[in-house]
Amino acid sequence: MIIVMAAGASESEISVVVRSIEEMGYRPHLIRGVERTVIGAVGDERGKARLQSLETLPGVENVVPILKPFKLASREVKKEKSIIAVGEQVRIGGEALVIAAGPCSVETQEQVLEVALAVKESGAHLLRGGAFKPRTSPYAFQGLEEKGLRFLAIAREKSGLPVVTEVMESSQVDMVAEYADMLQVGARNVQNFSLLKRLGTVKKPIFLKRGLMTTIQEYLMSAEYILTHGNPNVVLCERGIRTFETATRNTLDLSSIPVLNEITHLPVMVDPSHGTGNFQYVMPMAFAAVAAGADGLMIEVHPHPELALSDGAQSLRPSKFGLLMERLKPFAAAAGRKL
Amino acid sequence: MIIVMAAGASESEISVVVRSIEEMGYRPHLIRGVERTVIGAVGDERGKARLQSLETLPGVENVVPILKPFKLASREVKKEKSIIAVGEQVRIGGEALVIAAGPCSVETQEQVLEVALAVKESGAHLLRGGAFKPRTSPYAFQGLEEKGLRFLAIAREKSGLPVVTEVMESSQVDMVAEYADMLQVGARNVQNFSLLKRLGTVKKPIFLKRGLMTTIQEYLMSAEYILTHGNPNVVLCERGIRTFETATRNTLDLSSIPVLNEITHLPVMVDPSHGTGNFQYVMPMAFAAVAAGADGLMIEVHPHPELALSDGAQSLRPSKFGLLMERLKPFAAAAGRKL
Amino acid sequence: MIIVMAAGASESEISVVVRSIEEMGYRPHLIRGVERTVIGAVGDERGKARLQSLETLPGVENVVPILKPFKLASREVKKEKSIIAVGEQVRIGGEALVIAAGPCSVETQEQVLEVALAVKESGAHLLRGGAFKPRTSPYAFQGLEEKGLRFLAIAREKSGLPVVTEVMESSQVDMVAEYADMLQVGARNVQNFSLLKRLGTVKKPIFLKRGLMTTIQEYLMSAEYILTHGNPNVVLCERGIRTFETATRNTLDLSSIPVLNEITHLPVMVDPSHGTGNFQYVMPMAFAAVAAGADGLMIEVHPHPELALSDGAQSLRPSKFGLLMERLKPFAAAAGRKL
Amino acid sequence: MIIVMAAGASESEISVVVRSIEEMGYRPHLIRGVERTVIGAVGDERGKARLQSLETLPGVENVVPILKPFKLASREVKKEKSIIAVGEQVRIGGEALVIAAGPCSVETQEQVLEVALAVKESGAHLLRGGAFKPRTSPYAFQGLEEKGLRFLAIAREKSGLPVVTEVMESSQVDMVAEYADMLQVGARNVQNFSLLKRLGTVKKPIFLKRGLMTTIQEYLMSAEYILTHGNPNVVLCERGIRTFETATRNTLDLSSIPVLNEITHLPVMVDPSHGTGNFQYVMPMAFAAVAAGADGLMIEVHPHPELALSDGAQSLRPSKFGLLMERLKPFAAAAGRKL
Repeated sequence: MIIVMAAGASESEISVVVRSIEEMGYRPHLIRGVERTVIGAVGDERGKARLQSLETLPGVENVVPILKPFKLASREVKKEKSIIAVGEQVRIGGEALVIAAGPCSVETQEQVLEVALAVKESGAHLLRGGAFKPRTSPYAFQGLEEKGLRFLAIAREKSGLPVVTEVMESSQVDMVAEYADMLQVGARNVQNFSLLKRLGTVKKPIFLKRGLMTTIQEYLMSAEYILTHGNPNVVLCERGIRTFETATRNTLDLSSIPVLNEITHLPVMVDPSHGTGNFQYVMPMAFAAVAAGADGLMIEVHPHPELALSDGAQSLRPSKFGLLMERLKPFAAAAGRKL
Repeated sequence: MIIVMAAGASESEISVVVRSIEEMGYRPHLIRGVERTVIGAVGDERGKARLQSLETLPGVENVVPILKPFKLASREVKKEKSIIAVGEQVRIGGEALVIAAGPCSVETQEQVLEVALAVKESGAHLLRGGAFKPRTSPYAFQGLEEKGLRFLAIAREKSGLPVVTEVMESSQVDMVAEYADMLQVGARNVQNFSLLKRLGTVKKPIFLKRGLMTTIQEYLMSAEYILTHGNPNVVLCERGIRTFETATRNTLDLSSIPVLNEITHLPVMVDPSHGTGNFQYVMPMAFAAVAAGADGLMIEVHPHPELALSDGAQSLRPSKFGLLMERLKPFAAAAGRKL
Repeated sequence: MIIVMAAGASESEISVVVRSIEEMGYRPHLIRGVERTVIGAVGDERGKARLQSLETLPGVENVVPILKPFKLASREVKKEKSIIAVGEQVRIGGEALVIAAGPCSVETQEQVLEVALAVKESGAHLLRGGAFKPRTSPYAFQGLEEKGLRFLAIAREKSGLPVVTEVMESSQVDMVAEYADMLQVGARNVQNFSLLKRLGTVKKPIFLKRGLMTTIQEYLMSAEYILTHGNPNVVLCERGIRTFETATRNTLDLSSIPVLNEITHLPVMVDPSHGTGNFQYVMPMAFAAVAAGADGLMIEVHPHPELALSDGAQSLRPSKFGLLMERLKPFAAAAGRKL
Repeated sequence: MIIVMAAGASESEISVVVRSIEEMGYRPHLIRGVERTVIGAVGDERGKARLQSLETLPGVENVVPILKPFKLASREVKKEKSIIAVGEQVRIGGEALVIAAGPCSVETQEQVLEVALAVKESGAHLLRGGAFKPRTSPYAFQGLEEKGLRFLAIAREKSGLPVVTEVMESSQVDMVAEYADMLQVGARNVQNFSLLKRLGTVKKPIFLKRGLMTTIQEYLMSAEYILTHGNPNVVLCERGIRTFETATRNTLDLSSIPVLNEITHLPVMVDPSHGTGNFQYVMPMAFAAVAAGADGLMIEVHPHPELALSDGAQSLRPSKFGLLMERLKPFAAAAGRKL
């Protein structure tokens, strides 16, 4: 860390900071500038809230962290991209793009099966669908819970598509892990640290969605929770952040793809359905995500969007999804990816 | 809801929408304007994602909700302000301001006891302190857990201050409820719906912090989760939202106080410590919160902020907190509140 | 507009609103719902701040606009995409992608000429470069002003590339229009309404950048200023909005492309240099912009980015720009565009 | 500045950076840490975009500025608060609070005179009112221009209140300065650098509103433009920033008051009318602003808000303004201010 002293900080104030740095086990290093003295604290600064607390000492202007606070998620620790296996055949992070598709909520056995077969036919690799639904309103449909998981398992059997589905709290992890091939953490749980720790102990891969207001750095810290607790199989997913713009449900932050590709080895997928909230914008943003370097996509598909119990406005009909897959091919090729 | 048809929507497209509205059990009502036809759907629209899904029908431009989506939290249902009891003597929402103070994290028995006695002496009404700590980094101090709860209980005994402390997941609720007088939901769990449902079944009052990215409407929907599950005792707390401004840790949204006072009967407290992230700004923002109509404050106090294991930069020393309480008095009086 | 009455609004409050609507020349239309009465005000609502002011009447909860506030910029008024001519040969908005490239600031005759010839060689269609520079700091390089315009004109002559350059205030418009083929309005001037009105009277096309905090709707209102004042030749440019994320200089809002393509006939270009602020992210975001449906790109190119007087960190070397143009081709083809 | 080298940066990469720093006239200073080498560049870094451009050199991770980029606006240069004179008697920044009040737009001679006399009667010190109006929509009322200035001048004569009114571009500065006692720069012009430079040459004090998207640091850079061009008389005004929250028109960032009071000597006023956009929230936020340490307030007052040509929804009736002034007194006293 760099501790910046205020203009006019006294020598004794500087001494107190130097001593404090030493007491915490760091090596202080002074640079006396024209207007400011800055003090480097050399040593591993990760998790060192106490260094930040030096801001309360007299004469300290502010404390600037230098190191990135995550380690296991970092490209510095592991240079080559991680390839995450889901089920027997799907590999996320390699040359092949991975497409997860399915309804927002599992509503009936017929609905999920119809979608599974249709998206499989169009070339999807994973079936998505929510049995536990985090809904803003307590009056909204909350999901079929275990019954929904069973419907998904049957759809997997008939379609051959591995299943990714959301888990909302620690106590559900075992149950969901029994049915699903990949466990999803929703945007609103990205800093549910109890859940993240628990998922670190699971054998299945984790699909970790970025939060609406999570910086990329915080997002990787959430991945780091899972990694440090023992599960190296984490796939990231950009799904839109919250901004002042209201023309779309969220603002899909596609720049996060090259940023993440630079600083982490974890694969990055994109969810343009939640990212835009509008079925009309899903296709162009899916193309853009692949062009920006995404390793895969998650797309909401519903046989009758106008009757969907959740997120109908952002769901594609199966035929539209087929068109998307078809038109995606040249973009995938341009990006050097297989589809 | 109001369904706005696109310019040039055909009569048959309008008919389909009208029929769909009727099938969902609403009464349609057409207004034919110069450039647009709009269709009102009369009936209770709460939780009706399916109405929103009409956006996918041909010729529909967008769907505009009219009713506020919360009910039990609304002033329309309960006109007078709720007064929430904590312990035997503290009442939040009445004429008397309520001040909760204490360390960010419980670190040692001595630390929490020293702070408890000091803030009691200065006039605080509640002791705050975290035993379970949601930390962005897995390398940061994660809290003393049950040991911390025991330290808090002892500090309550010696100081007479009821205790408010955070609960991070459903499985901890019983344990925390055993030690605490009030259960806090942290900003990052404000949309942890599993936890909110579970807290609806608890007898203790809930201190529900606003999330960094939660709109006021979504925030009240989170309160509504607790209320609909059976617990009417919810206190709200503004603690800063995330914006582009980096001079403060968060942007304390004090306008939320008059907005909440208008639309909900639940009491509203303010946390200027997290709201600003800087001990130098806590005092003026505490005064401002009371001037804007807050029912109370939550303030972080630590005997040695520069050594704090978390959030030292925003903690006041006990003497500074004493000064705050002293200087707060005329503001409380100006706001017509007792302190 | 829709006027939503508060729950429990009295009949006389409703009457006052109805009468006010009539007095303003609108036709009122009541819908009595279960919990609310809403009143439609039928008529052209554009620019009608007075309808919004009805919110101050007793019993009115809020006023919801229905019509989009822009007209000439709207697809409803002009269905086919506008094609904007720049110089003799460049056409923006047609099948061919248009690439504008050049330095952030014009620094010397040699610099701008070297870049112009290099980007021309790589296939660029327009030369960009700033002679008047809006800089956050008064201590930063403010541009060469008219001398810079002359350097640009010479570079145009030698390279054959039409020139787009920024104009910062009304009094400069004539001078800049004399040298430039297209006049750029920078992000910070997107709501400089005096300047916009003045540009409505100019014969040259306008390159209007989106502001850092401009909603898409406000952005189109700024275009509408130019259109209503007589100049139909406006090209839009997404260049990143301001959000809480700090890993990139701005958050490039690529979703704005399909949104704009839906609601306006004006062409849309993208500036991934300002959008990301980092040369490493420019290439993937350029590909993504084209995949999302952009009509062109604006890219900063500098012969020696590490010596640039402004925005070096986001500038490409000419060789890197050549690579970008090469790798862009299959993406352009996938998007059905010529390059 | 601090240049942070990437992990694994080679010695020759470090040498290139060191040499570059020296060539630019700074003194390099190496700190070799466990995982990173960081290099301090000692010297005045203000306006040094070229130092930032070092980010494009191989092996450089990023460049971190240390010094605040403003100088004349800084408390380091001038410790005591500036007191800005407006007209003969008003002084902003001293013990006395200063209240500016009046209509959003000047509409008629009667309207502005009626408001002027009413707010004077209630204790206001300055008359506000817009003759040149920056409006998002070209179809909205654009102001009475010079006629409006004349109406203001007459209202000043009859009420004795000095006038503050907006100037939108350089070419209007002389005209507005002739009529007004203080020239206002609106939020959308806060980075209209041409206008700011021009206002640096004016004898009248400047009322500089913060932009919707302006960080506090950028805001002070805008003030610095005026100061460096020769006009030391700048009053700042917080008026709300743009966030994701839609319950209020903007989010009034009251924390900016203590932040500004710490780092600049310029006085800070607050505009709760624009900050909230809703007349019901103006009073509590006015109290809060004073409690947080504001030097004054700007309040919109209109005799008939429901008929206002602009911003009626956020305007107070004169009687409500009178009540505000009355109820403000104890808050002013609590804050140690005269009213």
